[in-house]
Amino acid sequence: MKPPGCWKMFTVAVCMAFLACLQAQELQGHVSIILLGATGDLAKKYLWQGLFQLYLDEVGKGYSFSFHGAALTSTKQGQELIAKVLESLSCPEDMEPGRCAELKGQFQRLSQYRHLKTNEDYMALSKDIEAQLQHEGLREAGRIFYFSVPPFAYADIARSINSSCRPGPGAWLRVVLEKPFGHDYVSAQQLATELGSFFQEEEMYRVDHYLGKQAVAQILPFRDQNRKALDGLWNRHHVERVEIIMKETVDAEGRTSFYEEYGVIRDVLQNHLTEVLTLVAMELPYNISSSKAVLQHKLQAFQALRGLQKGSAVLGQYQAYSRQVRREQQKPDSFYSLTPTFAGILVHVDNLRWEGVPFILMSGKALDERVGYIRILFRNQAYCAQNEKRWVVDQSQCLPRQIIFYIGHGELGSPAVLVSRNLFRPSLPSKSWKEVEGRPGLHLFGRPISDYYVYSPVREQDAYSVLISHIFHGRKDSFITTENLLASWVFWTPLLDSLAHEVPRLYPGGAENGFLLDFEFSGAQLRFCQQQLEQLVPGPGSAPMPSNFQVLTAKYRESPLISAWPEELISKLADDIEATAVRAVRRFGEFHLALSGGSSPVPLLEQLATGHFGFPWAQTHLWLVDERCVPLWDPESNFQGLQAHLLRYIRVPYYNIHPMPVHLHQRLCAEEDQGAQMYASEISALVTNSSFDLVLLGMGTDGHTASLFPQSPAGLDGTQPVVLTRSPYKPHQRMSLSLPLINRARKVAVLVMGRVKREITMLVSRAGHEPKKWPISGVLPSSGQLVWYMDYEAFLG
Amino acid sequence: MKPPGCWKMFTVAVCMAFLACLQAQELQGHVSIILLGATGDLAKKYLWQGLFQLYLDEVGKGYSFSFHGAALTSTKQGQELIAKVLESLSCPEDMEPGRCAELKGQFQRLSQYRHLKTNEDYMALSKDIEAQLQHEGLREAGRIFYFSVPPFAYADIARSINSSCRPGPGAWLRVVLEKPFGHDYVSAQQLATELGSFFQEEEMYRVDHYLGKQAVAQILPFRDQNRKALDGLWNRHHVERVEIIMKETVDAEGRTSFYEEYGVIRDVLQNHLTEVLTLVAMELPYNISSSKAVLQHKLQAFQALRGLQKGSAVLGQYQAYSRQVRREQQKPDSFYSLTPTFAGILVHVDNLRWEGVPFILMSGKALDERVGYIRILFRNQAYCAQNEKRWVVDQSQCLPRQIIFYIGHGELGSPAVLVSRNLFRPSLPSKSWKEVEGRPGLHLFGRPISDYYVYSPVREQDAYSVLISHIFHGRKDSFITTENLLASWVFWTPLLDSLAHEVPRLYPGGAENGFLLDFEFSGAQLRFCQQQLEQLVPGPGSAPMPSNFQVLTAKYRESPLISAWPEELISKLADDIEATAVRAVRRFGEFHLALSGGSSPVPLLEQLATGHFGFPWAQTHLWLVDERCVPLWDPESNFQGLQAHLLRYIRVPYYNIHPMPVHLHQRLCAEEDQGAQMYASEISALVTNSSFDLVLLGMGTDGHTASLFPQSPAGLDGTQPVVLTRSPYKPHQRMSLSLPLINRARKVAVLVMGRVKREITMLVSRAGHEPKKWPISGVLPSSGQLVWYMDYEAFLG
Repeated sequence: MKPPGCWKMFTVAVCMAFLACLQAQELQGHVSIILLGATGDLAKKYLWQGLFQLYLDEVGKGYSFSFHGAALTSTKQGQELIAKVLESLSCPEDMEPGRCAELKGQFQRLSQYRHLKTNEDYMALSKDIEAQLQHEGLREAGRIFYFSVPPFAYADIARSINSSCRPGPGAWLRVVLEKPFGHDYVSAQQLATELGSFFQEEEMYRVDHYLGKQAVAQILPFRDQNRKALDGLWNRHHVERVEIIMKETVDAEGRTSFYEEYGVIRDVLQNHLTEVLTLVAMELPYNISSSKAVLQHKLQAFQALRGLQKGSAVLGQYQAYSRQVRREQQKPDSFYSLTPTFAGILVHVDNLRWEGVPFILMSGKALDERVGYIRILFRNQAYCAQNEKRWVVDQSQCLPRQIIFYIGHGELGSPAVLVSRNLFRPSLPSKSWKEVEGRPGLHLFGRPISDYYVYSPVREQDAYSVLISHIFHGRKDSFITTENLLASWVFWTPLLDSLAHEVPRLYPGGAENGFLLDFEFSGAQLRFCQQQLEQLVPGPGSAPMPSNFQVLTAKYRESPLISAWPEELISKLADDIEATAVRAVRRFGEFHLALSGGSSPVPLLEQLATGHFGFPWAQTHLWLVDERCVPLWDPESNFQGLQAHLLRYIRVPYYNIHPMPVHLHQRLCAEEDQGAQMYASEISALVTNSSFDLVLLGMGTDGHTASLFPQSPAGLDGTQPVVLTRSPYKPHQRMSLSLPLINRARKVAVLVMGRVKREITMLVSRAGHEPKKWPISGVLPSSGQLVWYMDYEAFLG
Repeated sequence: MKPPGCWKMFTVAVCMAFLACLQAQELQGHVSIILLGATGDLAKKYLWQGLFQLYLDEVGKGYSFSFHGAALTSTKQGQELIAKVLESLSCPEDMEPGRCAELKGQFQRLSQYRHLKTNEDYMALSKDIEAQLQHEGLREAGRIFYFSVPPFAYADIARSINSSCRPGPGAWLRVVLEKPFGHDYVSAQQLATELGSFFQEEEMYRVDHYLGKQAVAQILPFRDQNRKALDGLWNRHHVERVEIIMKETVDAEGRTSFYEEYGVIRDVLQNHLTEVLTLVAMELPYNISSSKAVLQHKLQAFQALRGLQKGSAVLGQYQAYSRQVRREQQKPDSFYSLTPTFAGILVHVDNLRWEGVPFILMSGKALDERVGYIRILFRNQAYCAQNEKRWVVDQSQCLPRQIIFYIGHGELGSPAVLVSRNLFRPSLPSKSWKEVEGRPGLHLFGRPISDYYVYSPVREQDAYSVLISHIFHGRKDSFITTENLLASWVFWTPLLDSLAHEVPRLYPGGAENGFLLDFEFSGAQLRFCQQQLEQLVPGPGSAPMPSNFQVLTAKYRESPLISAWPEELISKLADDIEATAVRAVRRFGEFHLALSGGSSPVPLLEQLATGHFGFPWAQTHLWLVDERCVPLWDPESNFQGLQAHLLRYIRVPYYNIHPMPVHLHQRLCAEEDQGAQMYASEISALVTNSSFDLVLLGMGTDGHTASLFPQSPAGLDGTQPVVLTRSPYKPHQRMSLSLPLINRARKVAVLVMGRVKREITMLVSRAGHEPKKWPISGVLPSSGQLVWYMDYEAFLG
C-alpha cells in the first residue's frame, strides 16, 4: 500500500470520527453542571476532582459540558479560589502527562465561577446557559445542581432553581443534595415536603457518600454474581452475625457546633450504616440494575426491621468532648453534654431470612483505629473429627468462615473484599477488582490474611467521583430516595427520642479505652460488658436488682398478700405461675390458665415467654378472663396483647389457645350469636369441673375486675359462666368470665401495680363482700386459693 | 505428765475405739459381695481392684465383708486365677506400704473363689453365707451380686439368685448388671421384663461405667455448685453447641464377633454418650442428691429429644474392618459388613431451654487420637470495640468461652474440668478437685491452656471403683434404671432400624482419615463435609439433584401441566406459590391460600416453611379446602397436619389462621351448628369476592378432590359455598369447599403424585365435564387459572 493512499484513508477516518463525534454531541447534547458552594471544603476536597474525573471519563463520548462553580463569595475572590482548585486537579496515575495537561486545560476552560444568590442571579445563569447553547448550536441535555451548602440554604436555592433556572423542554434537571437531611422524622419530612414542592422525586439525588465507597458499592454486585454459592448461605441458618462498623480515631474538635446538634447516631448510623444494613439484609432483586427493584427491596427490608428500644443501644462519649464543647461554644464550666460520640446498636430483622441474627452497628470517634468494614460471620455448623492440629485452612469447615467488605483504612489500608478460603472462591468483575495477596503476617478478624481470598479494586476511586458519575448516568439506586430517607428516620427517631436524656459512658479515647466500650447482647438487650461501679446519673443499668429487696408477705382481705418492687413482684408471680403449671401438668397432664388483658400483665407475659424454660407450654391451655368486643386483630383486643407479648415467643398448639368468640358471623358480641354460651360450653368440655388451674385478675381504680363493673349486675352472680357486660370505658361492650366461674378456680392471683391503684387498694381493704359496689370484693374462690400480688406503690403508696 | 498415765490413757482410748468399732459392726452388719464372672477380663482388670478399693474405703466404718469370686471355672483353677489377681491389687499411692500389705492380706483372707453354676450351687452359697453369719454372730446387711457375665447367662443366674440366694429378712439385695442391655427397644424390653420377674427395680444396678468417670460424675455437681454463674447461661440464648465425643485409636480386631452384632451406636452412643447428653440437657433438680429427682428430670430430658431421622446421622467404617470380620468369623471373600465403626449424630432437644442448640454426639474406632470430652461452647454475643490485637484473655468477651468436661486421655492425659477464664471462676469441691496449671504450650479447643481455669481430680479414680462404692452406698442416680434404659432405646431404635442397610463411608484409620469424617449440619440434616464422588449404593446424599432434570411443561385437560421428579416438582410448586403470594400481597396487601389435607402436600408445606425466606407469612391467610369431622387436635385432622408441618415453623398471626369449624358446641359437624355456613360467611367477610388467591387441591384415586366425592351430590353445584359431605373412607363425615367456590379462585393448583395415581390420571385425561363421576373434572376456575402439577410417576407411570 502506498503512503499517500494511506494518508488519505487516515484523514478520512479522522474526519469521520470527528463528524461522528459532532453528530453524537448533537445527539446527546450539552450538560451544565452547577456546583453550589463551590469554594467550600467538600467542594475543594472532593467535588471538583469528581467533576474533573467525570470529564475525563466522558470526554469524546457525545456530550459537551460546562461547569459553573457558584457561591456567595464575591466574583473576584471566587474566581481566584476556583483557579487554585482547578490547578490542583490530578489525573489518574496511568494517564500520559501530556494528555493530562491537555484535558486539564480543556476542563479549566469549561469551568467558571459565578456569584449566585438572588433569584435574579439564577435567571441570569439560565440566560447565560441558553445563550451559550444557542451560540454553539447545541441542544440542551440537562442541568445538574450540586448543593454543597448548609441545609438552611436549601429552600431558597431550590425555589430559585425551580422558578428561574430549569432547563428547557426535553432536558432533564438533577439536583444533588448533601446530608444532613433533617435530624428526626418530622424535620426530614418537612424538608422533603419543601423540596418536593420544587422538584420531582426523580430529579433529586440525595448523596450518602458511603454508597460510593467501592467496597460498599460492591455488596449487591457481589451478592448477585455469587448467587449460586450464597443462595443457601445468606440466611439465619448460616449467618451467625453481621457487623457494620465505622471506627474513627479523630474526635469532634473544631466541629462541635455541628456535632452537638447531631451526635454519632444521626451523623453516621442513621445514614451510612443503615444503608449498608439494607444492602446486606434485603432480598436480592432478580435484576440488580433496576433502580426501582432495588429501592423496592430496600423498603421491604426497612419494613422488616424490629423497632429499636432504649435497650438496643449503648452510648459513649470521649472524655474531652464536653470540654471541647464548652470551649468552642462558650458554655459555662457547669455544662456537660449528653451527645454520644460512640454508639453500639443491635438491630434485628424480623423476617424468615434473618430472624434471630444479630446485626451489630457500631461507630465512634476517638477510638483506637480508623477502619470501616462489613463483616458477615457464618456459623460453624461442622464438627471436625480430627485433632485441631491437623486442620488445614482451605479444607476445614471448623475454622471461621466469613465475608468482609473492607471499606478502607485499618490494617489493610485499602478497600477490599475478603472471603474465607474454606467458604468458596468468589467471583468479582475482573475489570474493576483483582485478586491480591495480603501482607504476610497480617492477621484480620481472627485469622491470618492467607486464610482469605483477597480482592482489591484495580483502581481506587474516591466515593464522590463514583457518585458524580452515577448522577450523570442517572443511576438512582446509589442515592437516597425520599421514601428510603423517611423509612430510615421512622426506624431511628423513636430510639433517638428515648435516648435524649441518657448519660453516655465516658471513655478516655484511643487505645486507652481498653474494654470499656466492649458490649454484649442477651436477647434483644445490649449492654456494656464491664459494668461501671458508679454512674453520674442513675441509668437503667443502675436500677436496684430484685435480689436487693425482700419480698414482703402479709395478709390482705384475709388472703395471702405478696408485695415487692415491680420487677421482683413480676418475677415472683412468674415463678409461682410456673410452679403451679408444673404441678398441674404432673397431676393432670394439662394446665388451664385464664389471663386478663390490660397493661399490668405485659411484663409478666414477657417474663414467662422468655425467662421460663421449664414452662410446660405444650400442655398449657390459654383462656381469656375477659375480652373487648373488637376483632381479635384489633390493637384494643386483649387477645392481641397476648399474641404480641406471649404467643409469638412460645409454642402452644393452636387448639390449646382459646380466644373469646366475640366476633362471630362477622358481628361483634351479638346476643343471638351466643358467643358467651359457646365459650362456656368450651370451658365445660375441656376444663375439668370448669375449675381453672389459675385465673389471673387485675383490679381497676373503680374496683372492677375481669370485665365485671360496679353497678352492673351481669356476671356477679347467677348461673351463666360467661357473660356479656358493659364497661364505662370504651369499647363499652365486653365479654367476661362471671364471678361464680372465677370462684370455681383452684387458684386466683390478683395483680395490682402502680401508685394509681393506691386509693382503691385502701378502699377495698376495708370493704366487705360488696360485689355490686366493688366487683373485686366478690372474688373468693370457694375451694381454691386467692393470692394478692401488689407492688409497693400500690400497697404502700 | 508421767509416762505410765499416758500409756494407760492410750490403752483406754484404743480399747474404746475397738469397742466402738465392734459395736458399729454389730449395728451395720455384714455384706456379702458375689462377683459373677470373677475370672473374666473385666473382673481381672477393674472389678477386683474396685472391690479392694471399697474395702480400703470402708474398713473400720461399721460393716464386715466377704468377697466371693464365682465363675464356671473349676474350683482349683479358679482359686489359682483369683489368687493371682488378688496378689496384683494395688493401694493408693499415698498409703504407707506396711498398712497396704496388712489390708491386702485382710482382703485376701476375706476373698474366696467358688464354682457357681446350678441352682444347688446358689443354695449352697446362701447356706454358707448364713452359716458364716451365725458362726461369727453377725447380722446380715445385704448381698451384692455383680453380673460380669454375657447377657445370655443373665436369666438363669437371676432365677437362681431369686429362688435360692436372696438374703434373709431385713437385708437388702443388689444385683449389678453390665451392658449390653438388649440391642433394640424390643429386646431391651424383653430382658427388662425377664429381670423384672426376678428382681425389684430398686434391687437392680445397671452399670454404665461412663457414669463413674470422674469428669462425667462431676457434671451435675458442677452445674449445682455453679448455679449462680450458669443460671443465665445454660440455655439456647447462650450455648452455641454441645459436643459429646469419644474417640478411640484402637479398632475392633479380635472383638468383631461382638462388634458385628452391635456397632458403634449400640456400643457407645445409645448408652455412654446418651447418659452424658441427659446430664447436660436435663433441668437441674433442686436437690441433686435425690436419685428420684435426678431420674425424673432425666426422663423429662428424654421426652424432649426430637426423634432422629436417617439424616441425623453420618456413618463410617474403617477400611480394614470387613477384612477382620471375614478372618475372625470365616466369612467368604465376598462378604462386606455394613456395621458402622464411626458415627456422628445430631441431636436436638425440643424444649424452650435448648431449642435450636445442636448436640453433637460422635464416636469412632481407628481415629487419630484417643480422647473423650464434653464441650459446651457458648455463643459469642459480644462486640469488642478495640482491635483484636489488644484483646486480653480473661477480659475479652470476644474470645471463645467454653466449659469442657475432659473425660481423659488425649493431650491432657487425665480427667479435668476446663472453664474459659473470660467466663467465670468455677467452684469445685476442693476435697476431690484441685486447680492445676496445664502444660505450657498446650493448645486445646482453639485456645492455649492458659486461657482456662483447669481443675483435676485430687486422686484419679477408676470408673469401676467409683461405681462399686456407689452401689455399696445405694446411690442409684449413677445407674441406669429400667425406665431410663427403655427411654434411651425408644430414642435410638428408629434410627438404628432406618440405618440398617446404610453403607457407611470407608475411612483408612488414624491421621490418614484427613477430612473424610468431618461432618456438618444444615437444619436437622447431617452430612459429611466432603462429598464422595462415588458411592457403592446410592445413599440419600447421592440422590439426583433437581437441577439435573428438566421440568416438563405440557397440557392436561387443556390446562397447563407441570411435570417433574417429585423433589423438583415440589420445589417448583413452592416457588410458584411464593411468587403468587408476593404478587398478591403487593397488589392487595394480603394473600388468601386454601390448602388441602392429605400426605402429598407434606413435603410442600415443609419446603415452604423452611426454604422460603421471602414468603409474606404475616400477610397470608390460611384456609382449609376440606376437613375431617374430628377435633382439630386429632391426628386425623387436616388442620393437625398443617400445624405439624407448617404452622409450627412459621409466624402467621393467630387470626389469619382459619381452621374449619367442624367442632362447635363440642359436637362434630352437627348440621344445626351451621359450621359450614359460618365458614362461608367468614370467607365472604375476609376474602374479596370470595375469590381465593390460590387453592391447592389433590386428586384421589377415585377422582375425588377436596372432600367432594363421586356419586355424592353435595358441593358439586348449588349456592352453598361450604358443605358437609360424606366420604367413602373413614372418618366419613367431612366439611369441604364446594366446586362453585373453588372455581371462583384466581388460581387453582392440583398436585398429583405417585404411581398409584397413574390410572386415574389417564381416566380423567379423557373425561369431559363429569363432576358427578369425577369431581376433579368439575374444577375449572371461571376466570382464574388452573395448573396441574404431576410427578413423572403419576403422569408417565
